[in-house]
Amino acid sequence: MSETPLKDLRREVLAANLRIPEAGLATLTWGNVSGVDREAGVFVIKPSGVSYADLTEEDLVVVALEDGRVVEGHLRPSTDTETHRCLYRAFPSIGGVTHTHSAHAVAFAQARRPIPVLGTTHADTFNGPVPVTADLTAEQCAKDYEYNTGQVIVARLDGDPRRAEEVPGALVSRHGPFTWGATAKAALENAVVCEAVAEMALHTLALGSRLGEASEPPRHLLERHFTRKHGPDAYYGNTPHAPGP
Amino acid sequence: MSETPLKDLRREVLAANLRIPEAGLATLTWGNVSGVDREAGVFVIKPSGVSYADLTEEDLVVVALEDGRVVEGHLRPSTDTETHRCLYRAFPSIGGVTHTHSAHAVAFAQARRPIPVLGTTHADTFNGPVPVTADLTAEQCAKDYEYNTGQVIVARLDGDPRRAEEVPGALVSRHGPFTWGATAKAALENAVVCEAVAEMALHTLALGSRLGEASEPPRHLLERHFTRKHGPDAYYGNTPHAPGP
Amino acid sequence: MSETPLKDLRREVLAANLRIPEAGLATLTWGNVSGVDREAGVFVIKPSGVSYADLTEEDLVVVALEDGRVVEGHLRPSTDTETHRCLYRAFPSIGGVTHTHSAHAVAFAQARRPIPVLGTTHADTFNGPVPVTADLTAEQCAKDYEYNTGQVIVARLDGDPRRAEEVPGALVSRHGPFTWGATAKAALENAVVCEAVAEMALHTLALGSRLGEASEPPRHLLERHFTRKHGPDAYYGNTPHAPGP
Amino acid sequence: MSETPLKDLRREVLAANLRIPEAGLATLTWGNVSGVDREAGVFVIKPSGVSYADLTEEDLVVVALEDGRVVEGHLRPSTDTETHRCLYRAFPSIGGVTHTHSAHAVAFAQARRPIPVLGTTHADTFNGPVPVTADLTAEQCAKDYEYNTGQVIVARLDGDPRRAEEVPGALVSRHGPFTWGATAKAALENAVVCEAVAEMALHTLALGSRLGEASEPPRHLLERHFTRKHGPDAYYGNTPHAPGP
Repeated sequence: MSETPLKDLRREVLAANLRIPEAGLATLTWGNVSGVDREAGVFVIKPSGVSYADLTEEDLVVVALEDGRVVEGHLRPSTDTETHRCLYRAFPSIGGVTHTHSAHAVAFAQARRPIPVLGTTHADTFNGPVPVTADLTAEQCAKDYEYNTGQVIVARLDGDPRRAEEVPGALVSRHGPFTWGATAKAALENAVVCEAVAEMALHTLALGSRLGEASEPPRHLLERHFTRKHGPDAYYGNTPHAPGP
Repeated sequence: MSETPLKDLRREVLAANLRIPEAGLATLTWGNVSGVDREAGVFVIKPSGVSYADLTEEDLVVVALEDGRVVEGHLRPSTDTETHRCLYRAFPSIGGVTHTHSAHAVAFAQARRPIPVLGTTHADTFNGPVPVTADLTAEQCAKDYEYNTGQVIVARLDGDPRRAEEVPGALVSRHGPFTWGATAKAALENAVVCEAVAEMALHTLALGSRLGEASEPPRHLLERHFTRKHGPDAYYGNTPHAPGP
Repeated sequence: MSETPLKDLRREVLAANLRIPEAGLATLTWGNVSGVDREAGVFVIKPSGVSYADLTEEDLVVVALEDGRVVEGHLRPSTDTETHRCLYRAFPSIGGVTHTHSAHAVAFAQARRPIPVLGTTHADTFNGPVPVTADLTAEQCAKDYEYNTGQVIVARLDGDPRRAEEVPGALVSRHGPFTWGATAKAALENAVVCEAVAEMALHTLALGSRLGEASEPPRHLLERHFTRKHGPDAYYGNTPHAPGP
Repeated sequence: MSETPLKDLRREVLAANLRIPEAGLATLTWGNVSGVDREAGVFVIKPSGVSYADLTEEDLVVVALEDGRVVEGHLRPSTDTETHRCLYRAFPSIGGVTHTHSAHAVAFAQARRPIPVLGTTHADTFNGPVPVTADLTAEQCAKDYEYNTGQVIVARLDGDPRRAEEVPGALVSRHGPFTWGATAKAALENAVVCEAVAEMALHTLALGSRLGEASEPPRHLLERHFTRKHGPDAYYGNTPHAPGP
């Protein structure tokens, strides 16, 4: 395990964690971001219960993908560590995971309703509704609760890594959102999107109940937006050193 | 094309873009403002996917009104550039265009309902409901999607430049608000108004559904407010070097 | 008219105006505070259309209570100046007036519903519902619109200065809140309260519609809270140089 | 009574009070935190009506647990002081008390509905609904109103100190939330949780009324979350000098 990659990863994971309170995604210590180094077989995650204001790169905990052992760090990792580990193992292409208790996404999780696709803001990032997991059984709660939390997410996506790329997040029933992405930063940004589209959906449903229900957007519009940002024909954004036309 | 006007325009367009996150109109990179130089035949717009915190005057992209060519700039312009260009061509008196994903305006767009005129805050800026466009057809989505997005806005306003002055904004169905104005700054401020009146309307409709429906305000009140701020008899504000009585 | 009192008044009025955006009561330039000097027969008010960030003591405008003439100032006063003047003339004990377009209070104004007394937060400041005025007639809109806006407020309070002390604010139908108080600062703080209780009432009504209607609080509780803060038996707060027991 | 403990307590109580406006739990001066020194038989509390921006350690007031006498301080203590004192006397294990007027928690108080347990965010802190007190009678309002406010809270928890540890907060009917904890800081953080879960519950109920009612989470899930953070088997967080595995 080379030192330099982990140094960069620690920096990225710290920065992504600090964006949680900045973006209003969680109060107190209710959110965490991790990033993985697949070659080194480890991921870097926030320690448990440490406030964002106090968090340093040194406080981050390095955990083995294989068995969840703490490889580096003087603090206990996030209680949600095993959920992150489960997701990394099930979805080989993801590089970061984020968990928050953002208010509107949690409301959908508590109502056990997927966040429906109601417009292009959603379709830009999630190629389908943000799904809700099944409830964990008493057995799944009693033992390996956090790893099982990952399992119900994976099950909802049929364990399909390609679906996980198209729909980079899910709501754990009665709990809240987990999102992921190619990097820790991308996972955090998908958490921002998840909360934003949950808020918009809540307002849209409120209007619908007063003014007539919202209908589902046509598929051609949604596809257009998702492929504008993702895949071989994407034309959104500026990649560094790759100026536009 | 003289250098100085574009320098001033770049400064104004940068300042207006930076107000998007400040005013809470968009998270991540979900909004853009442009400003036009009619004499030079170009407009200046935000580059695609660049975060507001990193944005500089040099990053802004100069685009030809005539054909959408990039005239100056090392980055790709906003994916919404062709929508801006379509609006500038249809409405000769506008000097700036803004697009955001502000939550309450998006909710009306997703519910495909115009923002109704429920009070003077609305009437101060929009002389009528903020309309919603038709859905884009599969054909309109497949080719020239962004220019066609401008076309459905123009169509909703009957291609009438005078209506575009009286109602300086529209909601693209299932997408979100576009606003415009005499300058980039005015376009941005109309986006602020659009979001504020959408939020107020949502709360008003919620109260109405509980306490009895809101009725439409009398026309004489709305006219009073619009003409207090617009047109030959306007008496709101202080124009520089033109002190009040 | 002595210089020093007006200097102090300008400072207080400026400070109160700057709290409008800080407290989230208005965006752009949608709010204004004034303070009166009864001996001098003038009040000091925000100029029209000037942004809070740019506002200085020198920009404030001094207006005659008697006839609305501008006595001092190089800018045009707020378009709402005549409404302030009407309130000062009708209610001799008030020292400050505030107008905002805060979102929840405006929603009640647009729904033309008083803000009901649902709890002690409300009763601490308003000894009764925050009332809504009648609609202005076409005639009242056509001529002296802003003074007439004050008149419908005064009429809703039966022109009774004592009621204006007990209920220091009203919602102008389809427009928004005006509040007042012993000083400019108190008027501003009553605008903060008006918005806060409007938001709480909206949420309470939402819960009520789902869980059963809220009932009116018992009179003895409301009286207790109002008199805890107001009148001869008040025991809330610390007056300067008057330490507690 | 040793000086040093009170000095530390003053620092902690000041810090906790300053978090009230930072966390958006109250505007103006609508909230207060106290912390107790059981050995010294006193608690330290915010003075009445002093703004958070002006508050210093010296302004804090030291009050006797036994009889409510002011032991130290040049200002009058919070009007809610007697409520705090009542709670300290009824629940011997608590070290801090917080009162706020946070908007969503107040809405539940005004609707006289407990905040229901709808998910793990709630269960992490409150092992059951946040209850609402009975209304105070006219007699309870007329005399010793603030102490009686404490009494109705204690009565709702059956005067049971163990219940007060499991459910560290209650809503006073038509008034607002009081929370408590092992320290002033913990009491403040429980006020943050109380407001957050009230907001989430309000959104969840809104979704439920549109999409079908939310059901109660299974007991095994709630237990898991509460015991993950509380009691002998807790494994959340990092205690100072007690690094994780």
